[in-house]
Amino acid sequence: MARYISFRRPDGTPSFGRLDGETVHDLGAQGAAAWLKDAVAGDLSVLAATASYARADVRLLPVIPNPNKILCVGLNYATHVAETGRDQKEYPAIFTRWADSLIADGEPLVRPPETTRFDYEGELAVVIGKGGRRIPREKALEHVAGYSVFNDGSVRDWQRHNIQFTPGKNFPGTGGFGPALVTPDELPDLAEQRVQTRINGQLVQDQPVSDMVWDVAFVIEYCSTFTTLEPGDVIATGTPGGVGDKRTPPLYMKAGDVAEISIGKVGTLTNPVIDEA
Amino acid sequence: MARYISFRRPDGTPSFGRLDGETVHDLGAQGAAAWLKDAVAGDLSVLAATASYARADVRLLPVIPNPNKILCVGLNYATHVAETGRDQKEYPAIFTRWADSLIADGEPLVRPPETTRFDYEGELAVVIGKGGRRIPREKALEHVAGYSVFNDGSVRDWQRHNIQFTPGKNFPGTGGFGPALVTPDELPDLAEQRVQTRINGQLVQDQPVSDMVWDVAFVIEYCSTFTTLEPGDVIATGTPGGVGDKRTPPLYMKAGDVAEISIGKVGTLTNPVIDEA
Repeated sequence: MARYISFRRPDGTPSFGRLDGETVHDLGAQGAAAWLKDAVAGDLSVLAATASYARADVRLLPVIPNPNKILCVGLNYATHVAETGRDQKEYPAIFTRWADSLIADGEPLVRPPETTRFDYEGELAVVIGKGGRRIPREKALEHVAGYSVFNDGSVRDWQRHNIQFTPGKNFPGTGGFGPALVTPDELPDLAEQRVQTRINGQLVQDQPVSDMVWDVAFVIEYCSTFTTLEPGDVIATGTPGGVGDKRTPPLYMKAGDVAEISIGKVGTLTNPVIDEA
Repeated sequence: MARYISFRRPDGTPSFGRLDGETVHDLGAQGAAAWLKDAVAGDLSVLAATASYARADVRLLPVIPNPNKILCVGLNYATHVAETGRDQKEYPAIFTRWADSLIADGEPLVRPPETTRFDYEGELAVVIGKGGRRIPREKALEHVAGYSVFNDGSVRDWQRHNIQFTPGKNFPGTGGFGPALVTPDELPDLAEQRVQTRINGQLVQDQPVSDMVWDVAFVIEYCSTFTTLEPGDVIATGTPGGVGDKRTPPLYMKAGDVAEISIGKVGTLTNPVIDEA
């Protein structure tokens, strides 16, 4: 088994575990909070269950609820670069999110009252296992604990208030991350998996991971050059063409919509959309 | 007394305290790590000393060594906007740093081998005391624990690899933050203090805080709209004109240089520069 989740136990404490069909095997020490980021540097497969629950009895958390760093790659699919009208550069664009901007699979994405331009971005997420600095691309995949699905939800007007994306990428509850961490051995054909975004069932993004301009190994080499990567750090690898803001007419997310990002064997991230209360 | 520092005790554990001339009054519980960010939401002035040291016997840490969020305002002085050749926008540019990119007063700034374009940016730093979301500008200053001095050191080539600044703003040890947190009651004339940067004694930036395009209250209102501010969060408020990259000829920092940022009553941040070993 090689799918791991973060969740709240029935008593409310956070933990992480192995998903086995409809059963969750709790891998955290009982009686205290336990975090997947503290375990991903080691061998998850040798951890023994301390308890088991029905999946319906736990509440999912984002795959890594509390990463030290969340790096996001912008402009990593040629189709998206083209639709934004930008030039292809030699190096990727890197911006950041904070953890409180992210929600788990099944939780609602929150559209703040400051915008009507709330957009989806389906992406492959990489979770770092072994940390490091200046990791060469030839060894980069040895530093990956696993992969998951990411919706880099964006408040487009705030993203473009000025030349840096931070404001549009960090409203609380605007991004999705889940459902599970899938270990690399489960994904020998990762590059062939397709990043597919559906809004209310309509397919709006659909490209294989292999279309990325900078692949996972390069992105790890690049990011670890300017910052130290630590266990549990997250890299969202960028979105394909087809974002709502660049469609004619535009397609923004609103209350009652359902955003679904599917990346084949990596899993499917499904989130309804609500307006902030 | 209204100057607070973070430091390592003679035994190596981190704590925070009140600076009284050449004496440091330790305000953290003994026998454990203590952090200024956990105290700034309350009234620092009522905390009693648990120990005292000579200043020379402790090692300064960045004012807040472990903030949850570090927000940086770009393009907040008209002179700097002009020298970059950019247009003045309606809202500020906001990018982020991680804490491991920052060092304390007196520690060396580290130029990585990936660049020769290592630049200074003298800035006023705001430390949040009381957290909040959607803080109106009229009440924003009630959320400030105090002010300090920031050197938003920048690796210019990596900053411009693509359209987002993250890579150039996050190499480890490239920014300075200190020496002390100065409480607002000490700074009734904050706006009149001048942000002055000297490289090896040469004055290269010199403008009053009042020249900021977006003042501290507005910046807090704006940032707290798109993210929740928490106690100990840091906002670096942007740099005046005169950065090294825009001078003729350019003036970059190199091993053996000394960068000194002085903001009048807020204090002086002094860092030598070394090459990464």
